Amino acid sequence: MKKITVTVTLKKGVLDPQGKAISGALHSLGFAGVGDVHVGKLITLEVPDDTPDAALKEMCEKLLANPVIEDYTIGIAENRCCAA
Amino acid sequence: MKKITVTVTLKKGVLDPQGKAISGALHSLGFAGVGDVHVGKLITLEVPDDTPDAALKEMCEKLLANPVIEDYTIGIAENRCCAA
Repeated sequence: MKKITVTVTLKKGVLDPQGKAISGALHSLGFAGVGDVHVGKLITLEVPDDTPDAALKEMCEKLLANPVIEDYTIGIAENRCCAA
Repeated sequence: MKKITVTVTLKKGVLDPQGKAISGALHSLGFAGVGDVHVGKLITLEVPDDTPDAALKEMCEKLLANPVIEDYTIGIAENRCCAA
């Protein structure tokens, strides 16, 4: 099995109320210099070693991200091999 | 301003119902080989260049993560300098 990370973030220009709320809360806590805040998702998946990139892309498009308003990137977190 | 990324993930052993739901949905979609799925948050913050690490840590402990059940890591996404 290998570990895949998928990061899902809102596209530029899409309203991010969660980020706005965090920014406001940080200001209230005294961190006045904080600027824009954006919140995304970080999904780690364990998939078989022979999973093709196309399948990972399909998982993202169909379930993990909403391609209309979200961007996603797929990365490899780590390769794990079983002890012999 | 510099861009900071904070990743917030559930600690090992904490139940992750969102991950379980995604795993189940991927199986239903035909991706039978998918194993464990975990879902975390990815927060990007714009902070002043001179923000000390201690302040970033305080933001995480006080607001961005729940240190009882969540781990967090702080990273630098990019340094941006203004045009002269």
